[in-house]
Order: sequence, then structure tokens, then C-alpha cells
Amino acid sequence: MEEFQEAIERVIAGPERKSRLISEEEKEIIAYHEAGHAVVQTTLPKCDPVRKITIVSRGMALGYTMALPEDDHLLQSRNRFRDQMAGMLGGRVAEQIMFGDITTGASNDLERVTDLARKMVKRYGMSEKLGAMTFGQKEELIFLGREISEQRDYSEAVARDIDEEVRELINEAYERAEKVLTEQRDKLVAVATRLIEIETLDSDEFEAIMQGVPA
Amino acid sequence: MEEFQEAIERVIAGPERKSRLISEEEKEIIAYHEAGHAVVQTTLPKCDPVRKITIVSRGMALGYTMALPEDDHLLQSRNRFRDQMAGMLGGRVAEQIMFGDITTGASNDLERVTDLARKMVKRYGMSEKLGAMTFGQKEELIFLGREISEQRDYSEAVARDIDEEVRELINEAYERAEKVLTEQRDKLVAVATRLIEIETLDSDEFEAIMQGVPA
Amino acid sequence: MEEFQEAIERVIAGPERKSRLISEEEKEIIAYHEAGHAVVQTTLPKCDPVRKITIVSRGMALGYTMALPEDDHLLQSRNRFRDQMAGMLGGRVAEQIMFGDITTGASNDLERVTDLARKMVKRYGMSEKLGAMTFGQKEELIFLGREISEQRDYSEAVARDIDEEVRELINEAYERAEKVLTEQRDKLVAVATRLIEIETLDSDEFEAIMQGVPA
Amino acid sequence: MEEFQEAIERVIAGPERKSRLISEEEKEIIAYHEAGHAVVQTTLPKCDPVRKITIVSRGMALGYTMALPEDDHLLQSRNRFRDQMAGMLGGRVAEQIMFGDITTGASNDLERVTDLARKMVKRYGMSEKLGAMTFGQKEELIFLGREISEQRDYSEAVARDIDEEVRELINEAYERAEKVLTEQRDKLVAVATRLIEIETLDSDEFEAIMQGVPA
Amino acid sequence: MEEFQEAIERVIAGPERKSRLISEEEKEIIAYHEAGHAVVQTTLPKCDPVRKITIVSRGMALGYTMALPEDDHLLQSRNRFRDQMAGMLGGRVAEQIMFGDITTGASNDLERVTDLARKMVKRYGMSEKLGAMTFGQKEELIFLGREISEQRDYSEAVARDIDEEVRELINEAYERAEKVLTEQRDKLVAVATRLIEIETLDSDEFEAIMQGVPA
Amino acid sequence: MEEFQEAIERVIAGPERKSRLISEEEKEIIAYHEAGHAVVQTTLPKCDPVRKITIVSRGMALGYTMALPEDDHLLQSRNRFRDQMAGMLGGRVAEQIMFGDITTGASNDLERVTDLARKMVKRYGMSEKLGAMTFGQKEELIFLGREISEQRDYSEAVARDIDEEVRELINEAYERAEKVLTEQRDKLVAVATRLIEIETLDSDEFEAIMQGVPA
Repeated sequence: MEEFQEAIERVIAGPERKSRLISEEEKEIIAYHEAGHAVVQTTLPKCDPVRKITIVSRGMALGYTMALPEDDHLLQSRNRFRDQMAGMLGGRVAEQIMFGDITTGASNDLERVTDLARKMVKRYGMSEKLGAMTFGQKEELIFLGREISEQRDYSEAVARDIDEEVRELINEAYERAEKVLTEQRDKLVAVATRLIEIETLDSDEFEAIMQGVPA
Repeated sequence: MEEFQEAIERVIAGPERKSRLISEEEKEIIAYHEAGHAVVQTTLPKCDPVRKITIVSRGMALGYTMALPEDDHLLQSRNRFRDQMAGMLGGRVAEQIMFGDITTGASNDLERVTDLARKMVKRYGMSEKLGAMTFGQKEELIFLGREISEQRDYSEAVARDIDEEVRELINEAYERAEKVLTEQRDKLVAVATRLIEIETLDSDEFEAIMQGVPA
Repeated sequence: MEEFQEAIERVIAGPERKSRLISEEEKEIIAYHEAGHAVVQTTLPKCDPVRKITIVSRGMALGYTMALPEDDHLLQSRNRFRDQMAGMLGGRVAEQIMFGDITTGASNDLERVTDLARKMVKRYGMSEKLGAMTFGQKEELIFLGREISEQRDYSEAVARDIDEEVRELINEAYERAEKVLTEQRDKLVAVATRLIEIETLDSDEFEAIMQGVPA
Repeated sequence: MEEFQEAIERVIAGPERKSRLISEEEKEIIAYHEAGHAVVQTTLPKCDPVRKITIVSRGMALGYTMALPEDDHLLQSRNRFRDQMAGMLGGRVAEQIMFGDITTGASNDLERVTDLARKMVKRYGMSEKLGAMTFGQKEELIFLGREISEQRDYSEAVARDIDEEVRELINEAYERAEKVLTEQRDKLVAVATRLIEIETLDSDEFEAIMQGVPA
Repeated sequence: MEEFQEAIERVIAGPERKSRLISEEEKEIIAYHEAGHAVVQTTLPKCDPVRKITIVSRGMALGYTMALPEDDHLLQSRNRFRDQMAGMLGGRVAEQIMFGDITTGASNDLERVTDLARKMVKRYGMSEKLGAMTFGQKEELIFLGREISEQRDYSEAVARDIDEEVRELINEAYERAEKVLTEQRDKLVAVATRLIEIETLDSDEFEAIMQGVPA
Repeated sequence: MEEFQEAIERVIAGPERKSRLISEEEKEIIAYHEAGHAVVQTTLPKCDPVRKITIVSRGMALGYTMALPEDDHLLQSRNRFRDQMAGMLGGRVAEQIMFGDITTGASNDLERVTDLARKMVKRYGMSEKLGAMTFGQKEELIFLGREISEQRDYSEAVARDIDEEVRELINEAYERAEKVLTEQRDKLVAVATRLIEIETLDSDEFEAIMQGVPA
């Protein structure tokens, strides 16, 4: 089983890079960042269960939290998306809460959360203000090897409404992640501290910390 | 006759995929979604008659409601378009009414309803506010294998007016679908419940439920 | 002579398609639509005389009204354009007056009326508000086989002024067509009724009805 | 000398087309249109002297007024441009004054006057409001055989200012042409009347009419 | 030395064209235009010294004023740019002061002054309002043999601020040139008068006039 | 070691150009510019230590200040970026403080500071106002050998917000650099004076001046 998981991770994130030189300060930031993802995801009801948390860098990622659904989802609901967005922002929020400073480490999370929020508004009609319709023609154009994925077919006024709804969705998710991590700050510290010690937690170890079981 | 219908459906939606694994929760959502389409379409006078409803997935679709006109329409009227739009939104509205949450399952419906509303305003002059004229040059350009279908030839102010009229048309259709399904909530439940049991309803079975005939 | 006219029509609109299946309801709509064109065109002084009206479909057209000028026009005047625009909208207006609903059958008329109104404002300086000047560079670019006919060289504020003038011109034409058909509703009915009966009227038959001569 | 002039005109405007069928009504419009150009040009001090006026069509032109400078101009001044613009609009203004209707015959004049006014504002810094600067990069791009002559490098606010100045310049020129032709309406009528009679006037014949010499 | 200078000028501006036919009126305008450049440049402290003034046309230029720096400048300062801009506008200002009319002769000066003002604001951060930053990505794209030099990466609001700052810089330079030439109108007249007589002034002759030494 | 450093600098900035002719005035400006960078960078806590300052030109640079981090940074924080931006602006600020005039010498610094501020807002979610999201699709398109790095996917209103935040970040950095150099004006003068004397300072010499140790 472990071999199988290693194979999957290698495909998703590239080979482990234990040799990468990371300062103690950065190791701490990464640990809190990943712990932030994990604590939010395990707290909100519609997020997938956390399978593994690690601060061993792999490919481009300095650490990561692996969450897999219990079964395939053919349909995604608005409530599920809202929980997932909060989970994606858990890393950035943890940095802000613990260090009062934020880093470039969240940039990939921010891209994903922005992309999801835009899809909710523009493809899935999940904004009450903008209504049950789509925005932008999504037919793709393969032009010299790249896909230009959208043709804007709406006015500047609608573009502004879309931007406001997207920002609203993301701010709401940020505040939910902030609420979770503020209320569970001790858990956040416990998970991060353990990560700094042993670098990788599996789901059992993580669950034990969340239940308050001493290591 | 049945063979013939199977052949048509295979062409339109791809082969049946009975083997697809769908959770009970998703099956319920899909059933209410399709029942929503069917109940609205059968209630509004200018929609085509419902021929079949199914929650057996076929190609990309998780389920579908087949409605065919009694004879060819060479002309489409504004009133007919208004009923059709409400029918297209019946699935999304049913999800909202029954579960208080909405899913990605409606995204194709939303694209179609948006496309139709834009055509009403921009190609068919069916908006009173914007008047009996067209907007955007529709000549097509085949550029590296893709059609860029419209050249914007109007101002931002008109683009905003178009967007407002389109939203208005869609909101109105949404509210009509909502009114139908709220008033006929028992029918909606009956159709969906039966769909969960036997997965596919033909027009007779569907009509019987709508008439209140016990199964 | 008749053979010659058939040849011309075949070139302009394609072969007759008597076999096309059209419902009684649609036949009635088409008859009123074409009668609307013909009654407006024959009433306004600067429109060309009506030569033939038919509801036999030909090529893409479900019916058409043929009007030919008495002699070549090298110059077109603003007043002539105003009458022509009202004539183009006669079909749509007749539908609205007679059925209280409107159809996609007018879409080609709407394109033509929009195109003419835009040319009046942008190429011929026929809008008092925008003045004796042109808008947009009309040099053409043959790009991969298609002409992109205009390069916008004016501000958004002017684009809005152009749109308002175009809408104004079209609304004015609509109202003139409406006035003509409301005042001559009995003629409209007489022409449409006769069209439903015999499908095609030549100029003599049409003129007779307009003069109130019994068939 | 006459042969030489014929050669020049053939190059500029194409061969004469005496055979073109023109209605009496159109002939009158064309005569007043050309007389309008000629009377304005000969009245305003900085226009070039009128050499010939004709209503015999040549190439695409239905008539034309030939004015040639007395010597080469290496520099063009703002005042000279202002007079020239009024001259270009003389044809349109004459139509409006005499017939109360305007035609497509002025479209080429409108293009030229618009182009000149835009150059005054954007290339020659001749607008007090916009100041002694240029707008738009004029480097040219030969792209598939066509020159795209300008790259907009200014804001929408400046684009609007440019449009307003251009419109102002053209309106001013229109009003000056209107003033000239209203004050000299009898000359306008005399020139046009003579043109209808003999179709072409040389500079002596034209000057004689302007001096009030009986034909 | 003279041969060397001739060689340089030939490279910069093309061969002399003594034979070009210029009217007396135009010669006077050109003389005042060049005298305007020279008087402003020699008055403002940070302009380069005037080496030669001529109204003999060379290549495309009808006349020119040659100013060369005393030594190479690796750095250009805001104050130096401000003086140079006033010098560039000296020709246009002289025309306005002396003739109350302006000509196309300044169009190249206007392009240069506009280009410099835009660079000050967008590349060198020399506008207090817009601050110590750059605007627009300047990486160049060689596309079918032409450089498209800028990609706009800022909002319309900033584009408007840039335009206002550019106009402000140019208006200020215009007013400084106007102040210089109004105060030194007699010098302007003396230089222009001498230019009309002998067509070319070297730096000694020019300096002598500026010092009030009789010719 | 020195050979190694020379090799690095040669690669980064090109060969030394001792022979370049620089006026005394420009030498002074360059010295204060580089001293400005160095004093700000050594004062703010999160800047990298200054290794070398020189006014010997190398490649395109007229002088430079070399600062290298003590160890690799895998994560960059908002506070570190804020200090670095102030350091980048130290040269421009020193010019303004000492000479009351500013030069083109800062243009490369301005580009870098602008680029960093835009990334903070658009890629790293480091603006509180705009929130924890990204703006613009960063997928790159290699088009005829050049990367067009961003596709704008937001409204004009957001573009304006981004511009305001970027300007805010840069103004704040400018003010911090100004505060440092005003408070340490004597150090700035001492470093620049020494640079003019011996042209290059290593870290020990620089530190000694900053500590007030006499040369």
C-alpha cells in the first residue's frame, strides 16, 4: 500500500527532495502552512479526509497536504465548493495568524481558489446576484499550441459584478478558515510542532493529534 | 420503435453507461433535477411534450429529459422561447427547492439558457427596451479551424443594456419555473421518487404520475 | 416575361420549395408578415413599388415581398432611407399587431434595417446630432479570405452617441410602420387573407386589394 | 492645353461616362452639390481657385469641382485648412439648403473632411484644447498588404476630447459653408442652373456667373 | 572642419536642396520657425549650444537648427528635459506669435516633444503625481519586421493620469517658450530677418545677433 | 576569491569599462545614487547585506551595489519585499535629496520596483484591499519567440484597484527610503564622498563608514 501511495505522489508532485536545504525559519513556516490546510479541511464537513501531511519537499512543492474523497463525485455542490475554498486558504491564514507576515508559499493555493471562485460564478451559476446563467464563451482555440480559453461576451459592468462576487466568495472562505484556526489554535500548534519533529504525518497520527491524544 | 429511439439517443447522447458508479445522494439529486425539467415542461403550454425521462447516464450526461415537438417549427415565437427557458431551468430550480443547495449538474442547462436569451435580444429583436434591431456582426471567420462568431459593433452602454435584458429574461424564466415547481411540489416528489425506483419513465408513466394515477 | 422573373428570383432567393411542410399557424404568420411589408411599402411615398408577394418558400426565405425601383438610383436620400426602413419593419410590426407575439421570421429584416441605420449615421452623415462626418475607417482588410470592414477610430462616448442615433432611427421607422398598419388594418387583413388562399399575389392583384376592389 | 487637362482628369477620376443614365431629379441634385463646392471655395480666401465644374460623371464620381493651387504649398496653415473644410462641405450644405433633404452623394466629401479634421487635432497640434502635441503612434505596419496606420497610445478620456474637437472643427466648417451659401443663394442657383444646361463650366464661365455677368 | 560638418548633416538630414521652390511667404514662416527654436535653446540654461541655423531645405526638412552638447550625457535630468522640450516647441510658438496662425511645419517637433514627455512619465518616473514607477511593459516584439514597443498593463484611470501629466508637461514647456520669445521678440525678429537675407547662420553670427552686435 | 567575484560580476553586468568618459558632475550623481541604495539596504532589517559598491561602469550599468543573501530563500515574505523595494528606490531618493533634480539613471530600478509591487498584488495576494487571490492568467504564450505573459481576466474597476495598491506600495517604499536617508544624511555623504575618491568599496570599508570609523 505504501509503495502504491509513493508511486501516486511521485506522479502528482515529483520525487521527494530530502536533500533540499531549508532554514529552520522556513521549515517552521511550511509546517504551519500545511497544518493550516489540514486543520481547516478536517474541521469543515464537506472537505475530503486528510490522508497525509508532509513538509518534505517534492518537485516544486515545499510541502503538501493530501486529501482524497471517499468516493467519486460526479456532482459538486455550492456548499462543498465553499468548504474546499476555505481549506485551500488554510495555509495562508495560518501564516498570518502565527507570524503576522505572509509569504509567497501560498501563491499556488491562491491561483486555485481564484480559479474555483470564477468557475462558480461564471460556469455554474452559483452567485445569487449574477443568477442562473453563464458568462464568457468557453469554446477553446488552439492557437500555436496554446488554448485561449475564453472569449469575453459581456459588458464591463458585468465584469465588475463578476469580480465583486468572486472577491466576496474568497473573502468569505478566508474568514471561515480564520474562524476555524483561531478557535483551534492549539490544534494548529500541535500539528505544526509534530510536523517539525517528524516531517510527515499519516492520517492516524494526524487524527490522534486532532483528538488530543498525546503522541 | 424502441430500437429506433435507442438509436436516436445513442447518436444524441452516446451509449448508456449503466455501470457508472453513482452514490445514493447523487442519484437523488439527479432524479429531482430531471423531474424538475419534466414537470415544468409539461406544465407550460408552449413547451414540447415530454417523451422520456431517465437517470441512466449516457455519454457525458448523468440523466436527461427528452422532449420532442409535435411538428417542425420553422418560426419560433417569443412566448415559446420564454416557456422553453423556464423548462431548461427546471432542473436547477428543483435542486434549490428540494436540497437548499445547487450543483454543477446544471452547467449545460445554464449555457443553453444564456445562449438562447442572448439570441432573443441580439439576433431576434425580442427585447422591448433594445428594440427591433440586431447587435454584433454575425459573419463568421474561420481562423485556424475555429469560428469566431461575433464582432462587437456597439458601445459599452449597449453591451450593458444587452446584459441587463438577458439577465432579466433569465430571472423571469427562473421565477416561472420556481412558481410551477412550488405549486406542484407533490408531483415533483412523485416523479423523482419513481425515477429513483425504476430509473427511466416513458411518456405514459410520466403522464400517469402527473394525473395522480397511482403506480 | 414570367420566365424571366422566375429566373431572377431563382438567382436571388433559390428555387421554390412548394413541398416544404408548414403548419396552418405558421402559414398565417408568414402571410401577415409579408402583407405587413407590402402594405407599408405601398403606402410610404419613397418606397419602391411592390411587384409580387408570396408565401411560397424559396431557398432560406419562408416568403417574400419583391419591390423594384422604377429606375436606377445613383443617389439615395435620407427621406428615402427612412421610408425603406419602415418598409423593412412592416413584417415584424404586422406580427405584433395581429398576434401580440413576435417570431424569428423577422431576423433578416432586423439585420438589414440595423445595417442601413448604421450606414446613415456612420458613412452618410445623416444624423443631425453626430454631424456631417464619417466614423470608423472603412478601408478593408482581406485577412485569410474575409473582410474586416471597419477599424474603430472613435471614443466610447461617440460609440454611445452612434448607438443612440441608430436606435432612434429604427424606433422612428418602427412607429411609422405601426401607424400605417394600424390605420390600414383592414387592408392588411385583406392582403394576408388572400395570400393564405392563393399563396402568391402579383402587383395587379395586390393593387386591387389596396384599392378595395373585391377579388 | 485641353488635351493635357483631359489626361490629368482621366488619371485622377477615370474616363468620362456621358452614357450613364441619370434622372432629371438626380441631375439637379448633382448640379447643386457641385455648385455648392464651387461657390464656397471661390468665396473663402484661402481655398484654391476653381478651374472647372462638371456634372458629367467620370469613374465613380457623379460630378466634380476641380480646384488647383496657384503654387505648391510646402506648409499648410490652420486657417487654410479651415477654409478647405468649408469648401469640402459646400456640396452637402447646398443639398440641405435647396432640397431640405440630403443624399449619399456627399459620403466621399465627409470622409475627406473627417480625415483632415482628425489630422489637424492629432498630427498637427492645431486644437487649442488638446495642445501642441501628437496623439497615436503613426509608424505603419504593412500587414498582409495593408497599412494599419495608427496604434492608440492614449486614454479613453483623451479619445473623447479628440472626438469633441474634431466634431467642433467640422461643425464650424459646416456653419461657414452654410453662411456663404445662404448669403449667395442667387449665385448658387445661377451656377447650378447653368450646369444643368451645359453640364461643364470652365473657370471663365464660372467667374462670369459669380460676377453677375449674363451668360 | 566645414567638410566634416557637411558630411554629418548629409547623413542626418539628406543632401541640401537649394533648388526647391519656396514662396516668399513660406520662407518667412520657416525663418521665424527656426529662429524660434534657436532663441529658446540659447536662452534656457540646460539646452545644448546652437551650432548652426538654416532655412536651406535638406531632405524632408524645410530648415533646421543644429544644437550639439558640449560633452556626452550618460544621465539626463528632469530639468534638462524640461528645457529641451521648450526648445523643441520654440518653432511652433514663434509662428503663433508672429503670424497668429500655425502650420504643419511643426509636426515633427510635436512628435518629438510628445515622445519625450511620455517617456518622462512612463519610463523615468519623473511625474510627481504618478510616482517613482514605470508604466507599460517595454519588451519589444519584432512582428513581421516592426517593433510593437509597448504592452499596456495599467488601467484606464492610470492612462488618463498619464495623459494629463504629459499634457501638463507639454503645456508648461509651451508657456516657457512663449515667455522667452515674448520677452526677446526683437532678437527673434533680428535672427529671422538675417536668416531670410543669408539663409544660414553659424554659431558666431547667431551669437553676435543675440548680443545685439550689428551685422 | 577576488577572481571568482570578478567572474561573477562579469557574467551579471559585463566587463568593467574604466575607460568610459564620465563628467565630474555625473560621477557625483552616480556616487550618491549607489550610496543611496547601500545606506537604505544596510539599514532596513530584511535587506541582504551589502557586499560591494562601485561607480566603475560595467556593461550598461554606470555603477552598482551588490547585495547577496546569507542563505537561499525559498519563501519570500511581504515584510522582506517591503524592505527590498525601499532599497531599490534608495538611489532615486538620494538624487532627489542631494540635488533637487532626478535623472534617467534610476529607470532600471523603477522597472524592478514596479514589477515586484505588481507581483505582490497580483500573484502573491499581499494586498489587504484586493485579498487572497490572484489576478490575470499567467500561462505564457510563446508567440514568434516572445512571451506574452498575461491575459487580463478582470474588470477595469479591478485594474484600477490594482494600480492604486501598486502605487500605494511604491509610495510607501519611497517614503521609507526617504526617511532612512534623511536621518542618515551624514552617512550618505560619507559613503558617496569616499566612492568619488576610490570608486569601489568592499563590505568592510562600507561597514566602517557606516560605523563612523575614520577612513
